[in-house]
Amino acid sequence: MSRPGSKTYSFQIQPQEVDFQYRITLASLTNILLNAAGFNADDNGFGMRSLQANNSSWVLLSMAIEMDHYPTQYEHIKVETWIEDVRRAVTTRNFRITDADGTTIGWGCSLWAMINMQTRRAMDLTLLEGIHQFASGDGIPMDKPLRLGELEGEAVDQFHARYSHIDINNHVNSMRYVEWVSDCLSLDLYRDKHIVRFEINYLNEVLFNDEVRIFANEIAAGDYRFEIKKVDKTACRARIVLVDKPTE
Amino acid sequence: MSRPGSKTYSFQIQPQEVDFQYRITLASLTNILLNAAGFNADDNGFGMRSLQANNSSWVLLSMAIEMDHYPTQYEHIKVETWIEDVRRAVTTRNFRITDADGTTIGWGCSLWAMINMQTRRAMDLTLLEGIHQFASGDGIPMDKPLRLGELEGEAVDQFHARYSHIDINNHVNSMRYVEWVSDCLSLDLYRDKHIVRFEINYLNEVLFNDEVRIFANEIAAGDYRFEIKKVDKTACRARIVLVDKPTE
Repeated sequence: MSRPGSKTYSFQIQPQEVDFQYRITLASLTNILLNAAGFNADDNGFGMRSLQANNSSWVLLSMAIEMDHYPTQYEHIKVETWIEDVRRAVTTRNFRITDADGTTIGWGCSLWAMINMQTRRAMDLTLLEGIHQFASGDGIPMDKPLRLGELEGEAVDQFHARYSHIDINNHVNSMRYVEWVSDCLSLDLYRDKHIVRFEINYLNEVLFNDEVRIFANEIAAGDYRFEIKKVDKTACRARIVLVDKPTE
Repeated sequence: MSRPGSKTYSFQIQPQEVDFQYRITLASLTNILLNAAGFNADDNGFGMRSLQANNSSWVLLSMAIEMDHYPTQYEHIKVETWIEDVRRAVTTRNFRITDADGTTIGWGCSLWAMINMQTRRAMDLTLLEGIHQFASGDGIPMDKPLRLGELEGEAVDQFHARYSHIDINNHVNSMRYVEWVSDCLSLDLYRDKHIVRFEINYLNEVLFNDEVRIFANEIAAGDYRFEIKKVDKTACRARIVLVDKPTE
């Protein structure tokens, strides 16, 4: 199937991107996909810089990743990315991740809105020029990001947003939420299980010094749900699905 | 002056390595210098992998960095690194950081010991083959890392070591301590001041789930001292020296 505007970007997994088992962390993997998304939007003329010139900006709404295999330190991977569709309020960007041999090791799907930088309100994507010829209609073999429900229970962790969490937009970077969610699982789970699916809904931004509370709950066998709250609002919800490790 | 074994490595500052002002963080800068150190030790035949084959390993004791200018997102920098001397218990590795124009923007100095992986005790570096021809005697125009004193006072932060803090050695990664120290300063200080010097002494490792307490104190104008403690021991001490921003 043709994927207009699709392009493939190469990455090498760096030492600071791997965990205690030499495997890429979910946070670093998310970051790589977001970098690929940024490169591709730039290459096709609707990147952050061109939007900012129009007083608008991309906002990541949600993301899902399904992986057969997590690359390890110094491994080379390729990320192909393209736009599936562009609707009024949301555009869908997909990802295919391949290893150095060209074998597909995972897929990703991200949903984006465009906002007005002053009003912070959603803008009509049907009016954005230069993107519609890239709406390929080409899907991927996994579910799109789910809308995750509210989580009950007690906070498992609590702290304040710090300097190292904040990015150039003056709010907590999307990668940090993934890190905070990942930190809820024990090392034993990372050793014994395989993360077959990860997904996250971004709801409200967290600002410097905001108090953050983390909630985590295994709602069904292997189905872990997470919620990050600031005082009065939910910042994000996430889900990690664990299965027994495939025999290697 | 000749610097046998000296080599220069190129880096581009990535989006995830910069702070809210687009400037490289101290943690990312430290990480880049440690990567350059690793590449150079490998290139000269005494890297981690060759030491591990001998049941030994490098341990970073301390590090100091002095910067005139912090590179920003997507900037290309070069790091030249070489061994200054090799003594019985300690070897000194220096760094010179240059920008894309070749202008020197900073210097670094690191002290390393070699330990036996089983006993965790220091080994005699004078017996390590293949390193002594690289002891160039070539110093740099800054003080070596100081031995920092104990810090009094109350903890400013307290938490547990998590999955994302732990590296392949199953202890908190050296970059994370730098991040934790950096998180003690306010955004106003980052906006208004220039970090002219950073230094850190590594004393004891922190393991997964250890409770960590952070201490911070401005002991003289612009001279900030930090200590990271686990229950019974000091993990590291650090110092950040702030001056008024040079007029740009």
